[in-house]
Amino acid sequence: MKGWLLAPLMVFLTAQVALGAGGRISEDTEACIECHRSVHPGIVAGWKESRMAKITPAEALKNIGLTRRISTEKVPYQVAGFVVGCAECHAMNPEGHRDTFEHEGYQVHAVVTPKDCATCHPVEVRQYGENLMSHAYGNLNENPVYRDLAETTAGSQTFEDMKTMYEKADAETKADSCNYCHGTEVKIEGVRARDTGFGEMKFPILSGWPNQGVGRINPDGSKGSCAACHTRHEFSIQMARKPHTCSECHRGPDVPAYKVYLVSKHGNIYSSLGKAWNYTAVPWTGGEDFTAPTCATCHVSLVVSEEGEVVAERTHQMNDRLSWRIFGLIYAHAHPRSPDTTIVKNKAGLPLPTELTGEPVVEYLIDANEQDKRRETMQKVCLACHSHGWVDGQFARFENTIKSTNEMTLTATKVLLSAWEKGAAKGLAQKDSIFNEAIERKWVEQWLFFANSTRYASAMAGADYGVFANGRWQMSKNIQEMVDWMQFKLKEKQK
Amino acid sequence: MKGWLLAPLMVFLTAQVALGAGGRISEDTEACIECHRSVHPGIVAGWKESRMAKITPAEALKNIGLTRRISTEKVPYQVAGFVVGCAECHAMNPEGHRDTFEHEGYQVHAVVTPKDCATCHPVEVRQYGENLMSHAYGNLNENPVYRDLAETTAGSQTFEDMKTMYEKADAETKADSCNYCHGTEVKIEGVRARDTGFGEMKFPILSGWPNQGVGRINPDGSKGSCAACHTRHEFSIQMARKPHTCSECHRGPDVPAYKVYLVSKHGNIYSSLGKAWNYTAVPWTGGEDFTAPTCATCHVSLVVSEEGEVVAERTHQMNDRLSWRIFGLIYAHAHPRSPDTTIVKNKAGLPLPTELTGEPVVEYLIDANEQDKRRETMQKVCLACHSHGWVDGQFARFENTIKSTNEMTLTATKVLLSAWEKGAAKGLAQKDSIFNEAIERKWVEQWLFFANSTRYASAMAGADYGVFANGRWQMSKNIQEMVDWMQFKLKEKQK
Amino acid sequence: MKGWLLAPLMVFLTAQVALGAGGRISEDTEACIECHRSVHPGIVAGWKESRMAKITPAEALKNIGLTRRISTEKVPYQVAGFVVGCAECHAMNPEGHRDTFEHEGYQVHAVVTPKDCATCHPVEVRQYGENLMSHAYGNLNENPVYRDLAETTAGSQTFEDMKTMYEKADAETKADSCNYCHGTEVKIEGVRARDTGFGEMKFPILSGWPNQGVGRINPDGSKGSCAACHTRHEFSIQMARKPHTCSECHRGPDVPAYKVYLVSKHGNIYSSLGKAWNYTAVPWTGGEDFTAPTCATCHVSLVVSEEGEVVAERTHQMNDRLSWRIFGLIYAHAHPRSPDTTIVKNKAGLPLPTELTGEPVVEYLIDANEQDKRRETMQKVCLACHSHGWVDGQFARFENTIKSTNEMTLTATKVLLSAWEKGAAKGLAQKDSIFNEAIERKWVEQWLFFANSTRYASAMAGADYGVFANGRWQMSKNIQEMVDWMQFKLKEKQK
Repeated sequence: MKGWLLAPLMVFLTAQVALGAGGRISEDTEACIECHRSVHPGIVAGWKESRMAKITPAEALKNIGLTRRISTEKVPYQVAGFVVGCAECHAMNPEGHRDTFEHEGYQVHAVVTPKDCATCHPVEVRQYGENLMSHAYGNLNENPVYRDLAETTAGSQTFEDMKTMYEKADAETKADSCNYCHGTEVKIEGVRARDTGFGEMKFPILSGWPNQGVGRINPDGSKGSCAACHTRHEFSIQMARKPHTCSECHRGPDVPAYKVYLVSKHGNIYSSLGKAWNYTAVPWTGGEDFTAPTCATCHVSLVVSEEGEVVAERTHQMNDRLSWRIFGLIYAHAHPRSPDTTIVKNKAGLPLPTELTGEPVVEYLIDANEQDKRRETMQKVCLACHSHGWVDGQFARFENTIKSTNEMTLTATKVLLSAWEKGAAKGLAQKDSIFNEAIERKWVEQWLFFANSTRYASAMAGADYGVFANGRWQMSKNIQEMVDWMQFKLKEKQK
Repeated sequence: MKGWLLAPLMVFLTAQVALGAGGRISEDTEACIECHRSVHPGIVAGWKESRMAKITPAEALKNIGLTRRISTEKVPYQVAGFVVGCAECHAMNPEGHRDTFEHEGYQVHAVVTPKDCATCHPVEVRQYGENLMSHAYGNLNENPVYRDLAETTAGSQTFEDMKTMYEKADAETKADSCNYCHGTEVKIEGVRARDTGFGEMKFPILSGWPNQGVGRINPDGSKGSCAACHTRHEFSIQMARKPHTCSECHRGPDVPAYKVYLVSKHGNIYSSLGKAWNYTAVPWTGGEDFTAPTCATCHVSLVVSEEGEVVAERTHQMNDRLSWRIFGLIYAHAHPRSPDTTIVKNKAGLPLPTELTGEPVVEYLIDANEQDKRRETMQKVCLACHSHGWVDGQFARFENTIKSTNEMTLTATKVLLSAWEKGAAKGLAQKDSIFNEAIERKWVEQWLFFANSTRYASAMAGADYGVFANGRWQMSKNIQEMVDWMQFKLKEKQK
Repeated sequence: MKGWLLAPLMVFLTAQVALGAGGRISEDTEACIECHRSVHPGIVAGWKESRMAKITPAEALKNIGLTRRISTEKVPYQVAGFVVGCAECHAMNPEGHRDTFEHEGYQVHAVVTPKDCATCHPVEVRQYGENLMSHAYGNLNENPVYRDLAETTAGSQTFEDMKTMYEKADAETKADSCNYCHGTEVKIEGVRARDTGFGEMKFPILSGWPNQGVGRINPDGSKGSCAACHTRHEFSIQMARKPHTCSECHRGPDVPAYKVYLVSKHGNIYSSLGKAWNYTAVPWTGGEDFTAPTCATCHVSLVVSEEGEVVAERTHQMNDRLSWRIFGLIYAHAHPRSPDTTIVKNKAGLPLPTELTGEPVVEYLIDANEQDKRRETMQKVCLACHSHGWVDGQFARFENTIKSTNEMTLTATKVLLSAWEKGAAKGLAQKDSIFNEAIERKWVEQWLFFANSTRYASAMAGADYGVFANGRWQMSKNIQEMVDWMQFKLKEKQK
């Protein structure tokens, strides 16, 4: 470390940063860089590459119309004239941050939150608050049914006397599994002193840390982590627009969006020709900047035609271009009205947007008009490159797949209900977990893996993910195996 | 839309296209672009990038010898002097196209077919007619055994009184699953009027649309879609030569060619170093343009050495470099003589190229001489970078794997035959589907997933796909589970 | 072929190589190229791209300090002044190579080995000898438990009289499966004459060839193949540093390192931004040359900070930055002291580093001090871009996952032990294979697939690989299925 030996060198390097950045670095940020340049060189190097290190908010405001990248109309005087560096984000709003600590004369916090980002990007943060993702922590952990799914998935099992017992998952395990994507609750657990190259210093101990989950509960009370998609500390728009970012959470068998995209024609064009595209232009011009959509094109970005006509408005709500929620729940259904789905309750009293037999709980869901509106918003993107006949055919097929996958889930559910009724397994009536026996696991895979995968394949034309790659083949085979399991179990229980 | 407002602008833009293209755009195509530039900007932008937008057929004919990219000797006078644009493909041969409709004074069709492409590329279209892919629709849908596999895979199931019932898959579901790759039958179902930015217009309603399956049945009676691999509207040779194109259909567990390639040494070289290669040169020079093969190198492309010697002739038949058909059927076998496999019948009367117990139905299959010839054609490509000892070792190992995977399929088949015989399941003797019970599903996976995967891993050196990634581990485990299932079932049926 | 026709051309081409190379090609290598340029153009073309074709060892020695790429202090006089070409590697140490044969007046061998590479890279070869990989052949094939796993995986099965029988895997099958990565034993089986374009020639017949497995047993008695990672004949450092190289062996369900990496934040940054990185600089500077680690960064490479401070020393032992061995064995455990694990024996007499119930066999494993040292070495890399709080949190979570996955393996093992005890399956007490029955297969998947995957996901933050993608969901479901299988089996065996 030997920070003091390097000090003269660092002043020079800092000056270089300032020059390279083409903007003014605040004195506070310069103070941060002076040490952290050698302590965490990767962070500083990443940040130097970022647009935030090169443009001041005041300069960013000079971009007009669709080219503007920040959504505030007025940046606070104190930060407007400096590039956005360490201090601008990590020392903002110290009172609001319960994780604030005194560090070399500054009040800093480790956990930068949407509330911090909202200083310059208030519209995106507001939209994101309407995004289901921002409630991903509570929607999983405060819904009794889903919490049980998480517990029986991540918890331990023991085996004694020919019987298995489930144990609750500890916090570390949850943070390492479901909450890695859904977000943890970050709390201050104490303070620890540590010897550094600059003497002993004190740092807060954070539980649920590190985490960049989309629904993270932050020490300032806000929800989410912009860094989930806008990766620290380069915050590259290129990266946010590439599908690999979405793949961090949307690739597994429960939500194979990325895999489906990659085998689709769109994904093929991206993989084959995408290296020549422009991923940094704002607005993003179809045909000129790219010739096939990435995830962001259809779901997030401000897209315009070569003639400058707006094809799609930028959104961080994301589901406002989607009429159906096709994954995560037992049946595909119209999107919920509120991003907080813990308020949903079906007729049977379960916190689910449909009955166990599929009927939607309409009062919590968007209506057909809203669905039509969202579908049209999405189709406007499709129509930039496809004829009406093409798009109509694609969506008719997708609607049919919504229907047929829901039917197959209903069949699997009927098998499960029979198993419960006949005593092959214990379910709702016995107040037992509905996720802890082998047939229940198969039932979960029916919708969480196979029906989801089939719907993604239909939505994005990912062929085999709707057939042999966790698709219709598995849906169909799984029902046979559920029935067999029930019959074997009934035989086994027979004297 | 407001097309009339943009009209002056568009004339200018069209002129730009003409200049950029460096070739003459026909008046008809200019008329198309005038409106579609704003209606479907992505299509026009993609086409502008294409070689077809830049070179006229007359110019293309000036390339001599191996550098020529079109295979006709003479292009019709009417199109020779214009770059190949909208009208050249979508207004060609209007009488032959049952999907032709009157549109703004032109007779156009949406579905461009191999017959259209044959105007300039007759050799490739003829070769493709010998390719199994061109018959992919019929080979699946008109073979009773395979149609049943498709129906039991994609069809619905219901559950009543402890029994499951299969229902046939509807056309939309088939188009969304098997026929997505195999091709749909595109038919004209009527006409619909639609308000457009240019007033009301009438368009044909097409069933089975959209589709780009390799065996699509077209409204002009032809088979296939060149756009399956030569993606509209850029028709990039670069894209056709990259493995991502093949992955659209050849990635799932039934045919994991792409996945195996990616983990192979060849795939590693492509992923690591391929960005610096030349994918557009014709002919394609090994060593100079690329240092490891892609799918196209071994199976399709005209490949030459740096000294200009032909290593492999261009082919669109593809299996003329392959001695064995290693996937899709119950046993690996010599390639069928005819691409139309609906004519095949084994001794037991089933439309299969082998008996259920593996013996080849030799009269429908290529003989050993033809196999040798095809193997040598392929090996010439290998030998450009590998010694004879290396290549001999590789092929000896592959032949051994053909044999051992067929043996494991035979073992699984014997288990299934026992299950039928002992009444654990219903099969051929009971005239029941051979794909609708759990043990039958396992039997299918034995060959369709595990034996296939193992053979691909052997053919392309994809290691784990022959072991733990749907390989020998699963082949071996699956047999155990088939036997157990049979025994549990027999016990269950016991009073 | 017609080599003699091309001879004048080749002399010219060879001269071109010499000029292009910017170094002196030895006469011996020129003689090789003269023919092989036309016989195997791909090999020569690949080599021309290599650094070895451009720099002589004498020149390489001029690089001082951290920039030096060869580790010998003195290159033998005979080769120092020539670039490293065909003859330098394939004609080295002819007496030591049992595969040496007379070829056009030279004593050459096909199989280049670590002993050959050690002429210039002795430190790396020595370190690699301490790497478990160098013993991958014996650790699999000479450990009775593991050999049995390999045999029951790759061997055939037959079915007669309602019973299955296992047969041993033949050598070709083993070479095509487990030994593809682990390495084969390459032996000289005889000599074969072959007509070539230059007349009849004799070549040795090698068994176990081709192979580039990491633990290959070479004809000169050495172990391993440097070409496994340093792909012939370009030997690109860029390629060795990219994750695709590691994926050749580390991608399947048994060791999904590559897949986990790709969905991690690090992998996302690599996929999204990595094309702009510098993969050839030595030393490799974090922040400047790359902004997120590849496999090599954390496990192999010499990494420095922008200020030139060494973050990590180069190593080819690889596990000297790892405190736990997280895959391949039944339980995660401290790394073995010796790379030769055939010497390990637990209390029960099995050649395993833990008891069947998880207790480590400490005398063969590194102690806690050594574990701490290795963890700190790794953490120094992390700390280049992450705070201490971040890194501490990450490692605490990882240690917890080691513990909880081992517990789940213990539970599965208890189920298996019960099954053996109750007669549902035959195990150690019956001296039966512990891998040949369905429940034993499930037990293997519990640790070899699911626990491994979960630990990789934890180590590299690959989210879903610790949940639904062969993670905790499968660990938990598998235990249920093991118990059910045992109960069904006991019922079935009941009269």
